[in-house]
Amino acid sequence: MKNLPMRETRRIGIVMNGVTGRMGRNQHLARSIAAIRADGGLDVDGVVVMPDPILVGRDEDRLRRLAEQFGIERYSTDLDECLASDDDTVYFDAQTTARREDSLAAAIEAGKDVYCEKPVATTSRRALELAALAEGAGVRNGAVQDKLFLPGLLKLADVMDSGLLGRPLSVRIEFGYWVFPEALGATQRPSWNYRSEDGGGIVLDMFCHFHYVLDRLIGPVRSVSCATATHVSKRIDESGRAFAATADDAAYAVFALDDGVVAQVNASWCVRPYRDDLFVIQVDGVDGTAVADLRRCRVQPGSTTPRFVWNPDLPQDGDPRDRWLEIPDREPPVNAFRRQWELFLRHLVNGEPFPWSLRRSAQGVELAELALQSSAERRWVDVP
Amino acid sequence: MKNLPMRETRRIGIVMNGVTGRMGRNQHLARSIAAIRADGGLDVDGVVVMPDPILVGRDEDRLRRLAEQFGIERYSTDLDECLASDDDTVYFDAQTTARREDSLAAAIEAGKDVYCEKPVATTSRRALELAALAEGAGVRNGAVQDKLFLPGLLKLADVMDSGLLGRPLSVRIEFGYWVFPEALGATQRPSWNYRSEDGGGIVLDMFCHFHYVLDRLIGPVRSVSCATATHVSKRIDESGRAFAATADDAAYAVFALDDGVVAQVNASWCVRPYRDDLFVIQVDGVDGTAVADLRRCRVQPGSTTPRFVWNPDLPQDGDPRDRWLEIPDREPPVNAFRRQWELFLRHLVNGEPFPWSLRRSAQGVELAELALQSSAERRWVDVP
Amino acid sequence: MKNLPMRETRRIGIVMNGVTGRMGRNQHLARSIAAIRADGGLDVDGVVVMPDPILVGRDEDRLRRLAEQFGIERYSTDLDECLASDDDTVYFDAQTTARREDSLAAAIEAGKDVYCEKPVATTSRRALELAALAEGAGVRNGAVQDKLFLPGLLKLADVMDSGLLGRPLSVRIEFGYWVFPEALGATQRPSWNYRSEDGGGIVLDMFCHFHYVLDRLIGPVRSVSCATATHVSKRIDESGRAFAATADDAAYAVFALDDGVVAQVNASWCVRPYRDDLFVIQVDGVDGTAVADLRRCRVQPGSTTPRFVWNPDLPQDGDPRDRWLEIPDREPPVNAFRRQWELFLRHLVNGEPFPWSLRRSAQGVELAELALQSSAERRWVDVP
Amino acid sequence: MKNLPMRETRRIGIVMNGVTGRMGRNQHLARSIAAIRADGGLDVDGVVVMPDPILVGRDEDRLRRLAEQFGIERYSTDLDECLASDDDTVYFDAQTTARREDSLAAAIEAGKDVYCEKPVATTSRRALELAALAEGAGVRNGAVQDKLFLPGLLKLADVMDSGLLGRPLSVRIEFGYWVFPEALGATQRPSWNYRSEDGGGIVLDMFCHFHYVLDRLIGPVRSVSCATATHVSKRIDESGRAFAATADDAAYAVFALDDGVVAQVNASWCVRPYRDDLFVIQVDGVDGTAVADLRRCRVQPGSTTPRFVWNPDLPQDGDPRDRWLEIPDREPPVNAFRRQWELFLRHLVNGEPFPWSLRRSAQGVELAELALQSSAERRWVDVP
Repeated sequence: MKNLPMRETRRIGIVMNGVTGRMGRNQHLARSIAAIRADGGLDVDGVVVMPDPILVGRDEDRLRRLAEQFGIERYSTDLDECLASDDDTVYFDAQTTARREDSLAAAIEAGKDVYCEKPVATTSRRALELAALAEGAGVRNGAVQDKLFLPGLLKLADVMDSGLLGRPLSVRIEFGYWVFPEALGATQRPSWNYRSEDGGGIVLDMFCHFHYVLDRLIGPVRSVSCATATHVSKRIDESGRAFAATADDAAYAVFALDDGVVAQVNASWCVRPYRDDLFVIQVDGVDGTAVADLRRCRVQPGSTTPRFVWNPDLPQDGDPRDRWLEIPDREPPVNAFRRQWELFLRHLVNGEPFPWSLRRSAQGVELAELALQSSAERRWVDVP
Repeated sequence: MKNLPMRETRRIGIVMNGVTGRMGRNQHLARSIAAIRADGGLDVDGVVVMPDPILVGRDEDRLRRLAEQFGIERYSTDLDECLASDDDTVYFDAQTTARREDSLAAAIEAGKDVYCEKPVATTSRRALELAALAEGAGVRNGAVQDKLFLPGLLKLADVMDSGLLGRPLSVRIEFGYWVFPEALGATQRPSWNYRSEDGGGIVLDMFCHFHYVLDRLIGPVRSVSCATATHVSKRIDESGRAFAATADDAAYAVFALDDGVVAQVNASWCVRPYRDDLFVIQVDGVDGTAVADLRRCRVQPGSTTPRFVWNPDLPQDGDPRDRWLEIPDREPPVNAFRRQWELFLRHLVNGEPFPWSLRRSAQGVELAELALQSSAERRWVDVP
Repeated sequence: MKNLPMRETRRIGIVMNGVTGRMGRNQHLARSIAAIRADGGLDVDGVVVMPDPILVGRDEDRLRRLAEQFGIERYSTDLDECLASDDDTVYFDAQTTARREDSLAAAIEAGKDVYCEKPVATTSRRALELAALAEGAGVRNGAVQDKLFLPGLLKLADVMDSGLLGRPLSVRIEFGYWVFPEALGATQRPSWNYRSEDGGGIVLDMFCHFHYVLDRLIGPVRSVSCATATHVSKRIDESGRAFAATADDAAYAVFALDDGVVAQVNASWCVRPYRDDLFVIQVDGVDGTAVADLRRCRVQPGSTTPRFVWNPDLPQDGDPRDRWLEIPDREPPVNAFRRQWELFLRHLVNGEPFPWSLRRSAQGVELAELALQSSAERRWVDVP
Repeated sequence: MKNLPMRETRRIGIVMNGVTGRMGRNQHLARSIAAIRADGGLDVDGVVVMPDPILVGRDEDRLRRLAEQFGIERYSTDLDECLASDDDTVYFDAQTTARREDSLAAAIEAGKDVYCEKPVATTSRRALELAALAEGAGVRNGAVQDKLFLPGLLKLADVMDSGLLGRPLSVRIEFGYWVFPEALGATQRPSWNYRSEDGGGIVLDMFCHFHYVLDRLIGPVRSVSCATATHVSKRIDESGRAFAATADDAAYAVFALDDGVVAQVNASWCVRPYRDDLFVIQVDGVDGTAVADLRRCRVQPGSTTPRFVWNPDLPQDGDPRDRWLEIPDREPPVNAFRRQWELFLRHLVNGEPFPWSLRRSAQGVELAELALQSSAERRWVDVP
C-alpha cells in the first residue's frame, strides 16, 4: 500500500472588510472564499492555495454569527490591528463606497495586496489616485468586474476570440427591468439607488460594468453621448414612506469605439423586458452576429443569415430567433465572483496577468461621470 | 319581379403618375386602386365611390401592359394634358423624389387635389413650400404614411388609446436587417440607397416614418440626438460592380418628446435581427407596456409584471416573453396602403379629417435633416 | 465592542380556547401564533410584538402535549380563571359554534379584546347580539375571514383595485369537489356537515365566505335567490355506519349587488371539478376579466379579448385559456390565517383599521339564513 | 360480367323558403340539401333519396344567383303557387320568425309536411297553435334543434346512454362570449339582438336550445328561476350609430327537473370565457361526470375521481383537467344541420321516429317566456 504524495499547501491570509453587507456576504464570502475552502482550496499549478480570511466589521455579533456559519476561525472589529499584522497579506473591501476610499489607502500603505468591490471610489479622481498609490507602492491590486465572468459573457468573449463574427461593427446593450415604485412587502432594491443625493442613479450603478465589458470585447470607449431620465419621480422607501426619486432611472447612450464601432445602450429600471433576460448584449460583425445574456450566447453566422424581404402583407416566415444557434455549456457554470477571486489568487501565487486593476476600474467610474456630463451638456464628450 | 334599388355611384378620376415603379405598381395600383375597383368600389355612407385612374408615365409600352393587367381603360404619356383635363380631380405621384417636386407643383397649380409617396421633396424647405402652395390653393392634400396602417401599429395605437399603458415613459424603436453587400442574384435594395450623393442613407429613408409614428402614438418630437455610421463601406451594385458606400447605413438616435418621454432608435442595414420582426416598437408606460411589430402587438399590464430578481447563478424562470398577451386580430388585416387610400377617398367625398397632409409629411423630412445635423455637430438639435 | 441596540418588545397575552380542534391547532396555533413566535415576533412600526398564548381546553393531557410541541409555557382547563386574569388582554375562540357563543360573551364582559373562528354564532340574531355587546363594551373584535387572504384572492383584489377590469358587471363563484359518500379510511369531512339537525349544510358552511369576498371585491349583497339540493341522501359516518344526509350538499344561488352587478354561485359537494382549483371566482368587467383560484389569478384585458365566431364545424383556434396572463407572485405567499392574525395584532398595537369585525361576520351568517329562506320560499329575499 | 343492380331513387320535392338569409343559405342550403345532392343523395335502407328543392323568396336576382351557385334548377317568388303544386310535398321555412307563422300555417293547410328554423313562432301560444294545426292535419312536422347534433353533444348523449355517469344529479350550462359593444368594422352580431323591442335578448335566443338539450339528456324541465341582466346598455349598430341596448344580454337561471336534478345556466354576451369553448355543459352523476363542448366530451368516472384536500398552502397537485379522459371521435363529424335534415328525410321515407316536432319546439319558446316571467316576478315559475 502506497501513500498518496502530500501536496504542497500555501495559506493566504485575507483581511475581509465589509462582509456583513449583502454583496460581501453572499458573493464574496459564501459563494467565493468559503466555497473555495469547502472544496479543499484552489489548485494552482499543483499547489493547494488555501484562503484564510479574517472577517472585519463594526458589529461583533454579526461577525461571530457569520464566522460560525461559514466555519471561519477569525474575526475582528479593529481594522488597524489587522492591517498591522503580518499574518495577512491581502486586503479585501466590500464596504460602502465612501468608507472604502480611506480603508483601501490605509491597506496599500500597510503594504497589502488589495482587491475590492466596485466602484473603487465615489469619484474617478479619487479612484485614479488610489490606483496610482497602489502602483507606486508596488502592491498587486484589482477590483471586481463580475459581469465579465458571467457564463453568457464568457461564451460571447470566446465567440469573438474565435473570429466567427469577423470585424465588429456595432454593439447593443439592453439592461433593466421594472422596479416597482410602490412598496412590495420588501422593496426590490434599496431606496438610496433612486436618490442622487445619496449616490444613486443607473449611470453610476451600471456604466462601469458596460465599460469593462466593452473594453474586454472590443476595446476602449473613446467618446460618449448620453441622455438620462427620471421616468418615475415618486417612490416608496423601506419604511413605506413616499419620497422624491431624484436620480436617473434610465439612460440612453451611444459610445464611440475605435474603427468606427458604435455601442448603443438602453439601461432602465422603468422597462418591462420583452427579451431573453435582464441583460442582453448583441455584437454585429461583418461575418456574423452574437447575442448573449447572463447565461447563454446565440450566434448567426453570415452564411446562415436569411435575406429578409419587407412585406407586411404576410406574416414573418417563422420566428427569426429559430435561425440562431446557442453556444453549448462546455463545463458547469461557475459563480462569476468566485471565478474572478480564483484568478486573483492565481495572480498572487504565480504572477498570472490580472488585467482588472484599480486603474482599469477607475476608468469605469470616469466613464459614468462623463456620461452624466454629456447628458447635462447635451453633447458628445470625449474620454481623455 | 322587382329590381334591386340602384345605389348612388360617384366616380373619382385620378391621374396616377409613376405607377411603373415598384411601389407605385405593387402598393398603389395593384393592392389599392385596382383592388378597390375589383371589390366594386368603396362604400362611403351609402355612396359607392369608384376610383377611375389614368396611368401616366414615360414608357407607353409599360403603361399599356399595366392597364391591360389591371383592367384600366386610360393611360397617357402627356402629364400636362392630363392636368389640363377636368375629367380627373386628383393627382397622385409615386415618381422618384426629384421628379415629384415639379409635378406636384404643377398639379396644385392646376387645382388638383394631391396625394403622393414620401418623401414629398428632397429637402424639407422644398417640401414645406409645396405644403404652403397646396394650402394656399385650397386643394386637399396628403402623403403616404403607410407604417401607421400596419396591423401591428394599428393595434398598438388602439392599446394606447384604451389607456392600458397609462402615462407613457419611453419608446424603443428597432428597425433593420442585414443588407448583403455582395450581389445576390438580384440585390436586395437599389444601390443608390447606399450613396449619399444620390440621396441615399437610412436617416433620409426611415426617420420620416419614425416621425409620424411617434407623432400618432405620443406627440411631436422636440429634440434629436443622432449618430450615424457607415459600417459597410464597399458594396456591389445592380450591374455587379463594386462601389463606395458613402451614405449612412445605420443610425443611433434619441428623441426627446413632451412630458419627459424619450424615444431611442436603432436603425441599421447592418444588423442581424434577433427579434420578432424587421420593425419592433416598444412603449413602456406607468401602467403597462406594449411591443408591436409589423403585424402583431403584445402587452404586459402592470398588474402582471413579474418582480425580477437579479441572480445569474440561476436561469430565468421561463421565457419572459411567455408573460405577454398578444392582441388578437378582430378583423382580417387590410393592406396599409389601401387603408390610407380609402381614408383619402373618404376625405374627398365627405370631408372626414385626413391629418396626414403635405405639411405633416414635410416635418418628417425636416426631422431627418436635423438628425443628420446632430450627427455632424455631435450635439442635440432642437426641432424649430 | 458594542452591543446591538435593543428593540422595544411588547408582549400580548392571548387566551386561546379550542386549539385542540383541527382548525385551531393547525391554522391558528401552528401556522399563525407559534410561527410568529418562531420568527421572533411581529415587527409593528419598529416595535417587536410577541404573542404569548395560554392554551385553554377541557383535556389537560392534550393541552400539555400541544404546549410542549409548540414551546408554549402556559395552559389551563379553567376558562373563568383565565378571563379573570389581567395577564392576557385578548380572547380567541376556535371551539364548536354552539360553545363559542357563551364563551365569547363572557370574554367580552371580562373586557377582553376578542377574535374568533367563524361562524360567530349559530344564528345571525345571536351573532348580531354578540357584535352589539362587543361594541357596547368598547373592546376590539374580529372574526376569521381567511379566504380574503388567500394568495389568489389577494391578487384578484389588487387587480380590481388597479382598475384593470373597469366597472364590474358580473361575478361567478364555483366552489366544491366530490365528497365521497362511502367511508374512505378516514372520511374526508366530519359527518355532521351532512346533517341539518347538527348545523350542517353547504349554505351555512360557505355563504359567509362568499359574503365577505363579494363585500371586499364589489360591495354589499342586496338580495339573494337560492336553490339548495341534497343530491346524495345516504352517507357513511366516521364509525362506518350509514346515515340519512339531511343537509343541503349543493346550492345554486344568484346574488344581486349594487349597480346591476350579479353574482352567480355554484357550490357543491357533489361535483367533480373540471377547473383549475376547488374554488374559482371570475369577475367580468367592462374593461377586462379576472379569474382567481386559491393561489393564482389570471387576467384578460379588453384589448386582448378575442372576437369569437360561432362555428362548430371548426375546432376552436387554440385553447382559449392561452389568451390569459397570470399575475405573478411578487413575494412568497403567507398563510392566510397568519396574515389575518398579524393584521389583528397591528390593529391592537397601533390602531390600524381592522374591518373584519364581529358585526361584519354576523352579516355573513345572516346571508346564509336568507339563502335558506329563499330556497324554502322559492323566491328572491332582500337583505334587510 | 354482371351489371350493378340499379338502385331505386326517390325524389322528394321541397319548397325552401327564406334561403337568402344567412342561416338558410349557409346551413340549410349549402351544408345540408346541396351537400346531400352533391353526395348523390341519401341512402335510406337501400333507396336513394334525392331532395329536389325549389328556392322561394322575394328577390328574384338573389334567388337566381343562389340557384346557379348550388346547381338548383328551380326558384320562384310566388309561394302560393309553390304550395298549390303537387310536385313538392315538403315545406321548409327559414324566414324571419314573424313571417314564418303565416307561411307555415298556409303550408300545413296545403297538406305539406313541414320543417322549419326555430323559434317556430314569436310566442309560445302561436307556436302551440301551429303544432296543433299540423297534428290535426296529420302532416309530418319538425323544427331545427341543431345543438343536439353537435359532435360534443352527441358524444355526451352517448356517454349518458352508456350508464357511465349513473343517476344524474346536476347539470351546469355555460354559454357565451364577449360581444364587443363598439363597432368592429363588421359588428359581430346583428344589432336587433340587443333590442327587446325587436325581439332580441339572450333568453329568447338561447333558452329554447337549453330546453331541448336538457330534454334529450335528462328529461323535461318542470320549473324555472331566472334573473336577467342588461350589463352593457349602450352599443353601436351596423351603421356606426350608438343605440340603447334594451334586451337582456345575460341570464342566470336554475331549472328544476325530475328526481331532484338541478340545472344551472350561465348565459352571457358579456363574459370573457376562461373555458374550453363558447358552450360547455357538465353533467354530474352518482357514478361519474361528463363535460362536453361543441366538439369534445370528457369524462371522469367515479372510480378515478381524486380525493381533494383543501390546503391553500400548497398548489394543486397538477391540473385537475389532466385527470379527465376525452371521448374519441369514432367517425368524422358531420354538420349538425345536415344530420338533422337526414333524420327528417328518413322520417319521411320510412317513418323512423322524429321526436323534434313543432310541439316540442313550441315548448322551448314557452320555457323562454316563463324564464322572463320568473325574472320579472322574482320567483320560481312552474312549467304548465
